[in-house]
Amino acid sequence: MGGEPIVRMAELEIDPNQLETYRALLAEEIEASVALEDGVLSLNAVAIKDRPHHIRILEVYANRQAYEAHLQTDHFLKYKNETAGMVVSLALIDVEPLMMRGKP
Amino acid sequence: MGGEPIVRMAELEIDPNQLETYRALLAEEIEASVALEDGVLSLNAVAIKDRPHHIRILEVYANRQAYEAHLQTDHFLKYKNETAGMVVSLALIDVEPLMMRGKP
Repeated sequence: MGGEPIVRMAELEIDPNQLETYRALLAEEIEASVALEDGVLSLNAVAIKDRPHHIRILEVYANRQAYEAHLQTDHFLKYKNETAGMVVSLALIDVEPLMMRGKP
Repeated sequence: MGGEPIVRMAELEIDPNQLETYRALLAEEIEASVALEDGVLSLNAVAIKDRPHHIRILEVYANRQAYEAHLQTDHFLKYKNETAGMVVSLALIDVEPLMMRGKP
């Protein structure tokens, strides 16, 4: 697969009454995506400590094709459908990677 | 080293006139921190595409002690001092990791 990596920050606000369930579905989706899809390079989800229903996900896909394929997977569609009523707002912010480093 | 990981999101606004220089100093600091410090687990810096002087860094340290040690390193102090006049605003947001996954 060629092309530039797609890097994105998702900012979500979740219905506080459904936060536990949302978190479980998100964890399952991330685990499956990175394990099963070659083109999903990393998914790092965090919650803001004093506003735990505000969630941010830093997403790195190998390229546009990998991202489009991800949107069609069973695990992504399950997450998308089952969380639809839990997401109060969602902003997808295109970002440019400046320097991404982690321990091997 | 024991204790819980420290995970944080830094949100910075940089003086647009000094952005090139800032980016070079940030890249150098991230490279050195992850290469030289056992307790700096990952540093991922991105710029928002339509506002490239808005930068976000997702920072993961092994524990509080690793984070405190990081603040005393030569490479961090160089970055901090040399970028002081370039940073228009800095917010440090404590976050809780929900699910962090990446390719090995």
